Amino acid sequence: MSLNAASADIPSLSATSYATVYNLFSLVIASMLFTALFLLFSQRQVTPRYRNAIVVSAIVCGIAAYHYFRIFNNFEASYPPGATVDSVHELSNVRFNEGYRYVDWLLTVPLLLIETVAVMALTRGESKSLLVKLVPASALMIVLGYPGEISLDTSTRLIWGTLSTIPFLYLLYVLFVELSKSLDRQPPEVVHTIKMLRLALVGLWGVYPIAYLFPILGGDFFTGEGGFVLKQAGYSIADILAKAAFGLAIYKVARVKSRLEDPSRDEEHAAVPTVDGHASGSNGARSADERVAAAGAVNGRAASSRRPA
Amino acid sequence: MSLNAASADIPSLSATSYATVYNLFSLVIASMLFTALFLLFSQRQVTPRYRNAIVVSAIVCGIAAYHYFRIFNNFEASYPPGATVDSVHELSNVRFNEGYRYVDWLLTVPLLLIETVAVMALTRGESKSLLVKLVPASALMIVLGYPGEISLDTSTRLIWGTLSTIPFLYLLYVLFVELSKSLDRQPPEVVHTIKMLRLALVGLWGVYPIAYLFPILGGDFFTGEGGFVLKQAGYSIADILAKAAFGLAIYKVARVKSRLEDPSRDEEHAAVPTVDGHASGSNGARSADERVAAAGAVNGRAASSRRPA
Repeated sequence: MSLNAASADIPSLSATSYATVYNLFSLVIASMLFTALFLLFSQRQVTPRYRNAIVVSAIVCGIAAYHYFRIFNNFEASYPPGATVDSVHELSNVRFNEGYRYVDWLLTVPLLLIETVAVMALTRGESKSLLVKLVPASALMIVLGYPGEISLDTSTRLIWGTLSTIPFLYLLYVLFVELSKSLDRQPPEVVHTIKMLRLALVGLWGVYPIAYLFPILGGDFFTGEGGFVLKQAGYSIADILAKAAFGLAIYKVARVKSRLEDPSRDEEHAAVPTVDGHASGSNGARSADERVAAAGAVNGRAASSRRPA
Repeated sequence: MSLNAASADIPSLSATSYATVYNLFSLVIASMLFTALFLLFSQRQVTPRYRNAIVVSAIVCGIAAYHYFRIFNNFEASYPPGATVDSVHELSNVRFNEGYRYVDWLLTVPLLLIETVAVMALTRGESKSLLVKLVPASALMIVLGYPGEISLDTSTRLIWGTLSTIPFLYLLYVLFVELSKSLDRQPPEVVHTIKMLRLALVGLWGVYPIAYLFPILGGDFFTGEGGFVLKQAGYSIADILAKAAFGLAIYKVARVKSRLEDPSRDEEHAAVPTVDGHASGSNGARSADERVAAAGAVNGRAASSRRPA
């Protein structure tokens, strides 16, 4: 009995399949890189309490952008162009390395949980109690999936896949039972969004095990070129939703909570970094005092001499 | 009698060994680069007194990211793909240069000691007294290890390894005897963490001499492909823990101490550095006092002189 589910390497891609995957990978790079920049440059739209959640969201998108740069370059090296523009792209001697995705997830999945807990702004004790459960369980889920992913053997794939499901179920328990207790204390304006975020998180994670099972599903489609394109499309779209769109939703929650907790703060109170990074912090709606402080922030020395005695 | 312990160059790597090392190096790059960015963008979450420790931690991670970019590219050049994706990767005419690691350590190890002393916020005299001992001793430790690392001769390796151990033992003495006197004056909330940091520092350094001894241990495993992969994995994981995780722990200590020393400061008081590092520290909700202090924080000298009497 052959346990070899499929060759993981697709021997060739049509010009259309190649272009589809290529464009998708580029879409992911653009989405991740510029969501990261948007979030970094928008930190000051939320109160300091929520900035850690925004910076972590930006870091997640930055890490994903880095990995998609590598995946993109690897893809080009693995499937170089043929004799003409219409030729199939034959697999070169460079393997298309799915392992990068696991490296990405190992870093980003725990961070996604950290940003979710951070935006809830729980007490230190509650946050810590959730994170010591969520972070190790999520890292374990990724680590246990890796040996299965790189194996071509169906049994090996199933065993590691099953092991990886155990921490996943534990994550579901923590997110849907333990975290729910804290949800009652969130402002009603954001409870729905946080619930949706939680659902999106685990819903999107569902894409990954489905792609993982493709070689086991077997058949010409799932183990061939069509399955490869579908898998890369699935991963790419799931990554955009689970990291970039997710990060923007976190930002939205932080904005709403900032406004509720500090009604004086609204879009009026944000300073705008200009191209060279100096803060242009003056704004018609501000008091003279605020404008002076903003100006002083650019030039620390000057500000220091103006401290009230 | 041959004193040649082993050829340092591994003639070939299997596709799996190659992929494992490749993914690990990429993991280190992502961890270091994004920890550096996170720390730089989160500086203002701590009081000015601790920002130097955070910036130095970020610089350590940045230096390590740079060296791992070089190591990654060197690895690709040394072990190019064979005829097919499953072929072994034969050593090319480009040597895999372990010397990079020593260059990295020569810069980062003294800086790790500097960030550890900085986060303790001792008096100037105490800090100086510790640093004039720790920094030269740590640089000497690395410099003395290098001639042994590049030698294939067992005696040479042992001699330089032993010489390198002398400053290491002196570092242990300074860290565990002299630094302990200052630990009594740290807030109880962070004493445990600082002790763990110190232990992590020297514990993780233990990985490096073990890898150094591989060629001396001899045997097919330690001098062959398996030993090579294990050594690269050990270095990579030790580097992530000793630099990125260590930097985040320093940040944690700085956050706790900032909160204890200035209870009015919590997540509430952070401003955000813009691209070139100028703080845009104004904020509608702040008191004039706080705003000026935030502005002054850009210029550490000024801030320190403005402490209320």
